[in-house]
Amino acid sequence: MSDLLQKELLQKIDHVGIVVEDLDAAVQTYRLLGFRETARLPIPDQHIIAAFMQSGDSSIELIASTDPTSGTARFLHNRGEGVHHICYVVDDLPGTLAALQQQGLRLIDQKPRQGAHGEIAFLHPKAAHGVLIELLARHA
Amino acid sequence: MSDLLQKELLQKIDHVGIVVEDLDAAVQTYRLLGFRETARLPIPDQHIIAAFMQSGDSSIELIASTDPTSGTARFLHNRGEGVHHICYVVDDLPGTLAALQQQGLRLIDQKPRQGAHGEIAFLHPKAAHGVLIELLARHA
Repeated sequence: MSDLLQKELLQKIDHVGIVVEDLDAAVQTYRLLGFRETARLPIPDQHIIAAFMQSGDSSIELIASTDPTSGTARFLHNRGEGVHHICYVVDDLPGTLAALQQQGLRLIDQKPRQGAHGEIAFLHPKAAHGVLIELLARHA
Repeated sequence: MSDLLQKELLQKIDHVGIVVEDLDAAVQTYRLLGFRETARLPIPDQHIIAAFMQSGDSSIELIASTDPTSGTARFLHNRGEGVHHICYVVDDLPGTLAALQQQGLRLIDQKPRQGAHGEIAFLHPKAAHGVLIELLARHA
């Protein structure tokens, strides 16, 4: 293993992304679990609308499709509602991507792109035993 | 909504549980992602062996089946490798379960039972839009 990767790359979980059928119904359910909604925003290029909710130190992103041809709609059709991705905070996103790629881990995004809360990149689920991992370098 | 549930019930994520085919291979992969193994233990009553790994403030539990009839083996057959559950830390587990039940949320465990790191209880995935939530009151 490279020295590059002896350090702890993934600092902490930023949020868990959950695909749902009906955003309002899911927000209502997660309110019962003690979460409060902190933001709701359309992400047009992904054909989704996302509701961010928080409880204690934990955040979730509830994701509903706005278009039957979106990736989220396909996920819902194939897998049903449930966990879609885990988003981890990293300090140095380009450096982390380069180090992971050097280890032969499959990436969806070779370089950072703009997300709702900072620069993001997704690893391929095959890189992490079926888990879709999002890396986030939060805006300062 | 009851006043009981206006407070934030779920303090923080303790770990994400991930079902894998081959525990050693998965530990190796997550090492490349910067996680280090902190414990490995068989959980005989669930017919699994679990490896706990940590990176920064984040922990994962990699779960492999030791018996083709286990729930974990069925999960693997039906869904493939991936996120199995999200474990949240709670302060008052019996009180939280009572409050959730009063709201009509479906539980798998009506009362706490002994887990590897404290008292635990699972909610039904139907209670949380397809997410299997484990609640944990850690040993003091």
